[in-house]
Amino acid sequence: MKVTISRKAHFNSAHRLYRKDWTFEKNDAVFGKCNNPNYHGHNYELIVGVTGQIDPETGYVMDVKILSDLIKEEVENRFDHKNLNLDVPEFQDLNPTAENIVVVIWNKLRNKIQADFDIEVILYETPRNFVTYRGE
Amino acid sequence: MKVTISRKAHFNSAHRLYRKDWTFEKNDAVFGKCNNPNYHGHNYELIVGVTGQIDPETGYVMDVKILSDLIKEEVENRFDHKNLNLDVPEFQDLNPTAENIVVVIWNKLRNKIQADFDIEVILYETPRNFVTYRGE
Amino acid sequence: MKVTISRKAHFNSAHRLYRKDWTFEKNDAVFGKCNNPNYHGHNYELIVGVTGQIDPETGYVMDVKILSDLIKEEVENRFDHKNLNLDVPEFQDLNPTAENIVVVIWNKLRNKIQADFDIEVILYETPRNFVTYRGE
Amino acid sequence: MKVTISRKAHFNSAHRLYRKDWTFEKNDAVFGKCNNPNYHGHNYELIVGVTGQIDPETGYVMDVKILSDLIKEEVENRFDHKNLNLDVPEFQDLNPTAENIVVVIWNKLRNKIQADFDIEVILYETPRNFVTYRGE
Amino acid sequence: MKVTISRKAHFNSAHRLYRKDWTFEKNDAVFGKCNNPNYHGHNYELIVGVTGQIDPETGYVMDVKILSDLIKEEVENRFDHKNLNLDVPEFQDLNPTAENIVVVIWNKLRNKIQADFDIEVILYETPRNFVTYRGE
Amino acid sequence: MKVTISRKAHFNSAHRLYRKDWTFEKNDAVFGKCNNPNYHGHNYELIVGVTGQIDPETGYVMDVKILSDLIKEEVENRFDHKNLNLDVPEFQDLNPTAENIVVVIWNKLRNKIQADFDIEVILYETPRNFVTYRGE
Repeated sequence: MKVTISRKAHFNSAHRLYRKDWTFEKNDAVFGKCNNPNYHGHNYELIVGVTGQIDPETGYVMDVKILSDLIKEEVENRFDHKNLNLDVPEFQDLNPTAENIVVVIWNKLRNKIQADFDIEVILYETPRNFVTYRGE
Repeated sequence: MKVTISRKAHFNSAHRLYRKDWTFEKNDAVFGKCNNPNYHGHNYELIVGVTGQIDPETGYVMDVKILSDLIKEEVENRFDHKNLNLDVPEFQDLNPTAENIVVVIWNKLRNKIQADFDIEVILYETPRNFVTYRGE
Repeated sequence: MKVTISRKAHFNSAHRLYRKDWTFEKNDAVFGKCNNPNYHGHNYELIVGVTGQIDPETGYVMDVKILSDLIKEEVENRFDHKNLNLDVPEFQDLNPTAENIVVVIWNKLRNKIQADFDIEVILYETPRNFVTYRGE
Repeated sequence: MKVTISRKAHFNSAHRLYRKDWTFEKNDAVFGKCNNPNYHGHNYELIVGVTGQIDPETGYVMDVKILSDLIKEEVENRFDHKNLNLDVPEFQDLNPTAENIVVVIWNKLRNKIQADFDIEVILYETPRNFVTYRGE
Repeated sequence: MKVTISRKAHFNSAHRLYRKDWTFEKNDAVFGKCNNPNYHGHNYELIVGVTGQIDPETGYVMDVKILSDLIKEEVENRFDHKNLNLDVPEFQDLNPTAENIVVVIWNKLRNKIQADFDIEVILYETPRNFVTYRGE
Repeated sequence: MKVTISRKAHFNSAHRLYRKDWTFEKNDAVFGKCNNPNYHGHNYELIVGVTGQIDPETGYVMDVKILSDLIKEEVENRFDHKNLNLDVPEFQDLNPTAENIVVVIWNKLRNKIQADFDIEVILYETPRNFVTYRGE
């Protein structure tokens, strides 16, 4: 019996979408107002789903407290109240689009969660725009 | 790395559930209060998900602005503040159930989005009733 | 100790904004796409607040079941899955704007709730547009 | 054309997470504050999805009223305003974790829904913690 | 310039509505399924609003971190994962209706927040039922 | 009959809480992680309420399209995808706390809305923190 347990979390960050190796004009043409050199920001909402067998002894797939602490340590403490471009090493040379952020988060969690659990990460950049990654 | 980008949109429409080739009594037995000849209506909420590879140059699967404009052009402009039965050609002879609406929307978007992207459409008829179609 | 108890309810209706004594052109200029002669519709969300003293015996201002039944009888049964213009007598000669609907609902409830309770009605026409009336 | 129709419902219950065959200390170490012997409680939110072919005659996969009545009969009437540990037979000897509850609900619905429909059940224990089961 | 700052919090509790000095039959007639002797429970959502002048030096009415810590200390730590009837002294002889709970919370906060700030407490017992108290 | 019409809008911005005339250490002690020199950001949600008499001819207090356009012009176009500290003149020498932002927005709208209408502005900095200003 494979069940998915999911946990919502959030972090508030500034970012700018652009490539350092492109001119401002090219960045402007591709990324529009997201290319504001002074940055803008979001309340990111994160949903992490972990799929595995129910432990028949506890009735848990994974204690949601453990998952919640892991998200706090790996994601919230590193991304919350930060500038993604300037303060988060993973985005030094990687454009912090929602797509790239969700893959970075998935990889960070994949390293910490045992391999027989599947992982899905959903990231809301705004209430109307979100992305999903399952490591496929 | 296949990521799904999703965009929420909405439209407000009137509709009536019934078949023209059935008697009022039969329509009433099957569709109940949804068969009101004077119509009723909904704030439809729409979530369109597009799955594909991240473009390594931009960090986008697809610019969400392009997806949002496409939804506006193909769905919102044609369905919003309309009577689905009377104003939308697709439902001239097709009962506008949530199931039929979601398939119509999926087909309209499938025609406009490149074939190597997968599409999923979720349609909320009310906050408690929704349908999902993936073209399968 | 005056406490407000509030109850959420909803109804799904079709309507058209226009005045019968105006030309189509004038209605179109003032009400735009809301003047579609074939109607459009909404999932209306309703929040009814009733303010009064806590009954020291029960700990209730009013049993929320009584309030909920009253909303069902006075509002939901009459407005849900209806065309407000054609099926609801109050809007035979009254334009069913959100403002007029909220006043009509407040008056219907005022007639049924004892006079020493204050009443507030909030009506969401869409998740982003709502109106509030307190009988003032 | 396989479409999923989904219906949201809810029930409000008390529960306690523990095993009768463990000491209080062991239960406390594993289940923490969820092991309060006097119980705590939740507003559980339930989303049931049923996937099948659209009936070309009605345009329905399944009348959502039938699905809604089934959820009421099988889940709400038995779980709502109950103590899951004491009042619900399925949890006499089964720890009422979200994972175990979602499997119990899925099995109850599986017995009542025709076999060619797939079923997915999502259960929110809180707005930030939820579980999903598809019978796999 | 008087501004209200508001903070949302939550706690998950079991409770039973009844009076010890009434018969079970009388409690059943008045409180219905809320009188289950084995308790039921809710995810209570709490919104605390504090109204006062903006401090021209900081731009804060009150640091929301201070308000959030106060709610944690006075409300969450005492009510969360508890049985309100059995574990919370204020409800030993007071029926834990939403109305009585919101007044208890307001009084606890009133004792800890400086007198020139006004306080409003909103308590959601379910997403559709809530109560509001302003100390009037 | 005085009715309030309310409109929700949103903007996504970066900001930093600090005073230029304080040391970093003092700013850090007062504003904590909100004082990150590289900025952080939010999806601000805005609710503007306008209270006035219903125009008996149209049934409107104010055409919500006019209110929505006004919010777009005065707030969204100036704040969205901006750095509040660097890009918005009002915050050159004013700490962009939620309290100060809501007063700035109220004043901008007060200048554009006729004086016999009352205005209320609610600003969500996060889903759990919000402020309200009524010009009092």
